Amino acid sequence: MSRTVIVDALKRTDFGAEVNIKGWVRTRRGNKNVSFIALNDGSTINNIQVVADNEKFGDEYLKPITTGACISVTGKLVESLGQGQHVEIQAEKIEIYGIADPESYPLQKKGHTMEFLREIAHLRPRTNTFGAVFRVRHNMAMAIHTFFHERGFFYFHTPIITASDCEGAGQMFQVTTMNLYDLKKDETGQIDYSNDFFGKQASLTVSGQLEGELAAMSMGAIYTFGPTFRAENSNTPRHLSEFWMIEPEVAFNEIAENMQLAQDFIQYCVKWALDNCKDDLDFLCNMYDKELIERLNFVVNNDFERVTYTKGVEILEAAIAKGQKFEFPVSWGTDLQSEHERYLVEQHYKKPVILTDYPKEIKSFYMKQNDDGKTVRAMDVLFPKIGEIIGGSQREEDYLKLKTRADEMGVPTKDIWWYLETRKFGTAPHSGFGLGFERLLLFVTGMSNIRDVIPFPRTPNNAEF
Amino acid sequence: MSRTVIVDALKRTDFGAEVNIKGWVRTRRGNKNVSFIALNDGSTINNIQVVADNEKFGDEYLKPITTGACISVTGKLVESLGQGQHVEIQAEKIEIYGIADPESYPLQKKGHTMEFLREIAHLRPRTNTFGAVFRVRHNMAMAIHTFFHERGFFYFHTPIITASDCEGAGQMFQVTTMNLYDLKKDETGQIDYSNDFFGKQASLTVSGQLEGELAAMSMGAIYTFGPTFRAENSNTPRHLSEFWMIEPEVAFNEIAENMQLAQDFIQYCVKWALDNCKDDLDFLCNMYDKELIERLNFVVNNDFERVTYTKGVEILEAAIAKGQKFEFPVSWGTDLQSEHERYLVEQHYKKPVILTDYPKEIKSFYMKQNDDGKTVRAMDVLFPKIGEIIGGSQREEDYLKLKTRADEMGVPTKDIWWYLETRKFGTAPHSGFGLGFERLLLFVTGMSNIRDVIPFPRTPNNAEF
Repeated sequence: MSRTVIVDALKRTDFGAEVNIKGWVRTRRGNKNVSFIALNDGSTINNIQVVADNEKFGDEYLKPITTGACISVTGKLVESLGQGQHVEIQAEKIEIYGIADPESYPLQKKGHTMEFLREIAHLRPRTNTFGAVFRVRHNMAMAIHTFFHERGFFYFHTPIITASDCEGAGQMFQVTTMNLYDLKKDETGQIDYSNDFFGKQASLTVSGQLEGELAAMSMGAIYTFGPTFRAENSNTPRHLSEFWMIEPEVAFNEIAENMQLAQDFIQYCVKWALDNCKDDLDFLCNMYDKELIERLNFVVNNDFERVTYTKGVEILEAAIAKGQKFEFPVSWGTDLQSEHERYLVEQHYKKPVILTDYPKEIKSFYMKQNDDGKTVRAMDVLFPKIGEIIGGSQREEDYLKLKTRADEMGVPTKDIWWYLETRKFGTAPHSGFGLGFERLLLFVTGMSNIRDVIPFPRTPNNAEF
Repeated sequence: MSRTVIVDALKRTDFGAEVNIKGWVRTRRGNKNVSFIALNDGSTINNIQVVADNEKFGDEYLKPITTGACISVTGKLVESLGQGQHVEIQAEKIEIYGIADPESYPLQKKGHTMEFLREIAHLRPRTNTFGAVFRVRHNMAMAIHTFFHERGFFYFHTPIITASDCEGAGQMFQVTTMNLYDLKKDETGQIDYSNDFFGKQASLTVSGQLEGELAAMSMGAIYTFGPTFRAENSNTPRHLSEFWMIEPEVAFNEIAENMQLAQDFIQYCVKWALDNCKDDLDFLCNMYDKELIERLNFVVNNDFERVTYTKGVEILEAAIAKGQKFEFPVSWGTDLQSEHERYLVEQHYKKPVILTDYPKEIKSFYMKQNDDGKTVRAMDVLFPKIGEIIGGSQREEDYLKLKTRADEMGVPTKDIWWYLETRKFGTAPHSGFGLGFERLLLFVTGMSNIRDVIPFPRTPNNAEF
């Protein structure tokens, strides 16, 4: 008979029906007459209770059914009298697929540290916490694709391997097929990359934005959703060497529309989580972050505050004058630190803030220059608890201004002739932003370490699994 | 006033309304009284016609509105008397965002070769062909996510950078942050990878399957959809060095359910294209492949034939006996060539074929061994015109059989201790397969070169853009 997944079985009310369920044993307990097996198959955080008559199956047969074992149970769906469940299965047949020796199975007991669970990342999705996190992760990906699809955006795959590094977003991983024991060099001692796979030096992308802009300038509205890489030696709870990023880019959008898109986008995703991941969020809220659901609801229901960088600095300076202490100084022209961003969000406005019009010196060459000659149309979306969640801007569409600024900032424009050409041929105002997927997940799940919202984190000295 | 995207404007019937549209000029023609501007904004393959009164705007003003220029037009939506369109815009105001100098704009004339268009991959999405292909690409991605989401699968991100190469699927790209001018070596002359970013040698993934199996053995049903890499020096119309792959993996599925899933999956995607990409497919059908839509409908409406490898070889041998010529020989135990696969699909069965139960010698170590001791539960889905589109199998769930086979085949199992452990702890039957996204797109779009269904192809000596 065909299997019923547990998320569906738990919703059934046709008591008396024969069903088959399969899954992994979370616990087995009981008395000398019956065994209660809590079974989970990953479809939901909730287990289904299997009731097995000890005499019917025999103690020897039931003995290997311990935590982590995988079984198939056929039996009768019955109304449950136990707490917290309305159905259970009265087992008629139990097939044991695979045992999990209690002496060696690492997930035997509860209360493992997050550090230990990272070391067994191949097994941690079997825990309540990581099952919940990865189901939410799936749902957020689905929300993202649905949001953009409904609005006529096209999903656009920008390249992972790139021969240009113009975003200057950070250190890059080199990609090569050269034999490192026999590197060919030219007469000046330089490595001869004509021998390498792509005939030139190549790296892993730090952002798909530049290629995304090419697509926006032909298809109108696009978004990327793919892995990006930073080779920085940052061992922090907020950094990964390999992470997923979403980068929408929209022709004809100016900064105000870009801000609205960012707000609509995040609110849509958070609302999706509230609507579709209730059981998982309830668990995470109870276990890790009591204010989680309240915070998610707050973000969905409140407009984000739009504030210029200049105004933000004034607020911070006024706060300092009134006695507020910060570790780092603040004055017009400095890059804001996380403590400053969080003050604006958590103390001053008490809601998400979109900070705009930053000094051009602290932002990238491609951002649209304002008429004041000092600021650019950048925007950062700042969130409670996690700080910057989105960075974006209106893009400079004027060829000469873009080229001049790139040269001033030492960007090697010969590598991005194709990017500059979009400003020569049918240029137009356009805007976009980037959202770190794992930053969004930190916010939505309430987890505190970014290594716990991606299945197999890559960080300095760690590429296991 | 707010912009209307052209795909929506073309559907409107509220003639007389004032609208604003923005886009890139495809052509401008006319007579001494009026100009007809065909405008496209990427939202659809169809242009909207803008009618501009020459006297109203002046010849000088209209002169820079040439192919490739970007303009914003405000005007009245009127019923069109021209052929092939039912609405047009009577221009009241035209703003020129960006010109495209006819002397230097490369997309001036029609009829460029595909090779030339690859060299201007930053502009080719502005052509009808590539606009259509990339809109279909988006739709296929959306179909894939929707198909799995509706069936309770979770999207699971497997790592891109990996320190294990056990699939043995091909040559890999090395990923490093070491200074290649100053490589540290140990006393035996080996490169000391403790200095490298991950503390060991690392590469780009060739498949997410092994990690996907980990997830299936906890979350039940998962799929990956991410970039994969092969560093083979293959300059063919069917190979890319960087391509996207979809890999579902399902606990408790055996080979028959795996076959059904593969069929349902492809049929769902192809039907999505027929239902949602009609204009683009009509164009591609007319331009490149007259039988395209017929072929797509055929795949949607016919069961795939299930045939064992052994039976397939018998059919081929019988065909040879009757005079059928092949370049490569066929006998039980040999890997089938494309010509053989296509014979089975196009000549013999005249429908998609799922070939199963291959000799274990020509398949991977992780495939479930049949009781005959000779074959494994592999399955390849073979398609008309393109050959193998899916490869998959039921996985070996028995620890000892898996370990023995891995050792026999020289797989370094110490690198995949975590993979083997899933067979120690709660093992279960499970199955999965891999679909090359660009292979699917070749089939759905009718394009003949795989470099033309991905925005920025990476191939030997080519990582431009």
